[in-house]
Amino acid sequence: MHDTTFIAGDWGSTSLRLALCRGTKILDRITGPGVATQLAGPQANFRSLTKIWGAEYGPLPALLCGMVGARIGWVETPYLPCPAEPQSLRRAAIHFTHEGATVSIVPGLSCNNPLGAPDVMRGEETQIFGAVALSPALASGRHLLVLPGTHTKWAIVENGTVQSFLSAMTGEIFALLRDHSTLSKAGGNPQTRAADGFRKGLARLKSMPAGAIVHLLFEVRSRQLLEAVPEREAIEYLSGLLIGADVAAALQWFGAAATVVVIGEPALAARYNDALTAFGAESCNIDAADASLAGLRVIFGDVLGGEN
Amino acid sequence: MHDTTFIAGDWGSTSLRLALCRGTKILDRITGPGVATQLAGPQANFRSLTKIWGAEYGPLPALLCGMVGARIGWVETPYLPCPAEPQSLRRAAIHFTHEGATVSIVPGLSCNNPLGAPDVMRGEETQIFGAVALSPALASGRHLLVLPGTHTKWAIVENGTVQSFLSAMTGEIFALLRDHSTLSKAGGNPQTRAADGFRKGLARLKSMPAGAIVHLLFEVRSRQLLEAVPEREAIEYLSGLLIGADVAAALQWFGAAATVVVIGEPALAARYNDALTAFGAESCNIDAADASLAGLRVIFGDVLGGEN
Repeated sequence: MHDTTFIAGDWGSTSLRLALCRGTKILDRITGPGVATQLAGPQANFRSLTKIWGAEYGPLPALLCGMVGARIGWVETPYLPCPAEPQSLRRAAIHFTHEGATVSIVPGLSCNNPLGAPDVMRGEETQIFGAVALSPALASGRHLLVLPGTHTKWAIVENGTVQSFLSAMTGEIFALLRDHSTLSKAGGNPQTRAADGFRKGLARLKSMPAGAIVHLLFEVRSRQLLEAVPEREAIEYLSGLLIGADVAAALQWFGAAATVVVIGEPALAARYNDALTAFGAESCNIDAADASLAGLRVIFGDVLGGEN
Repeated sequence: MHDTTFIAGDWGSTSLRLALCRGTKILDRITGPGVATQLAGPQANFRSLTKIWGAEYGPLPALLCGMVGARIGWVETPYLPCPAEPQSLRRAAIHFTHEGATVSIVPGLSCNNPLGAPDVMRGEETQIFGAVALSPALASGRHLLVLPGTHTKWAIVENGTVQSFLSAMTGEIFALLRDHSTLSKAGGNPQTRAADGFRKGLARLKSMPAGAIVHLLFEVRSRQLLEAVPEREAIEYLSGLLIGADVAAALQWFGAAATVVVIGEPALAARYNDALTAFGAESCNIDAADASLAGLRVIFGDVLGGEN
């Protein structure tokens, strides 16, 4: 693998991260539009984004994961049922030729989740196996991982195998209420913290019986109206309520875990750290972009002829 | 009051209902845009909508309730703190002259809700007092009322006085997820039922521990992907989950009530009837438009010089 130059990409609904790699080195990075937001098709987008690399290195194999393999993506890959390990993802991957090189797409996973419902993920499976590669302690025993995002995923990894997982609408509900609801018209930046609104929202959620979230959400509005809570603080309070509700319920479904592994971008991961702490769980973090790249290396190591 | 001709209106965020009344008779009805959706200001809207009545009857006094009294409305009326009765709403109403006649706007109510947070309503207070006028049994004893809508309101009426209430984001979250989320792109008609999606969603919510709603919402999507649930049924399932979560928690906060009074438009009220039945509570219905009109008569009866 140390000799091969290739493109590794995590192509989600709202954003695309591409890395030009040689062995374990990253030579360059590009970000672009997600599958749901791009105007041209995925193929045209991929071609225009990677043209500069092709001009320098010629045809490059590409390893991709995420919504690029969904029905709305480039080429649909079926969901692989859990339990799943890197080898089964590699076997179920879809390969096709694009401009003289092979594009490989990792399948998503499906499972019967801990609440007894069908569940799906695309892209997070690659991050999970990357996290296991980056943190060898995760390769044995039972571990609870959380991947916060538009649809937060909670996953159980046992001896390096994804046994089961559960999705939450946390990020999507937050964004809808922030951008489209009566709660706030101006919106706020989810990456920055305003006063201690987040901690207040978290503490409020924790102080109430389970099931209060549908009623607590309206407080965000009434506190703005009656207590003149600034808009940015109100948005943070909303984030605290929603992430608190997600974490409180998930810890109930999955039971106690020694340390919960948070795989995410740092600002969002920090919110989950706070919420996990509030509900009595320790946590540690692995960067989502690092995990994604490590996962593609693990899944496709032998395809590239490397030693990983 | 039987001699006076007047305009009675419930002017909410998304719609306006105006009635031309003489005493207890309704001579005509007009519907129009809500405070949040109208392009021109409320004053210009009101003028153009009622021009035809003015041409026939001359200047007409108008009695209005709802978001027309909010900061984004016509003239802001302050919130009146609970406990509140019709007399206190009448005393706190705002009156001003428009085209030679008096416009009166009912104030909204505020309270410290059963979850210990500030809460507000505008328009529902008028419907509540109208319901008490229409159902004399509500004038004594303690009663739990629910007014489903964009922001569902649960209210405690004791001896004809609104003691306290609690808002839920139920309707707004439903509309956001139906119209703007990954759950559904095509949307569905909330007024019609598809298969038994609603009952399935309700049963599913009921079968789970409190607090599951954030995770259950994602099922709507995964069942569409993996079980090919038709979109309209999925939207109904979503409605069942959300109304179920609202009702389950509200009955917990307010405790058992002999009969819950549902004040709403018939199709939405029927969903709350089903959910209340599922959680062991009896319910009866009062039409929202009737309640609104009856409330305005009760609040402004003596302003109009009538006997109510």
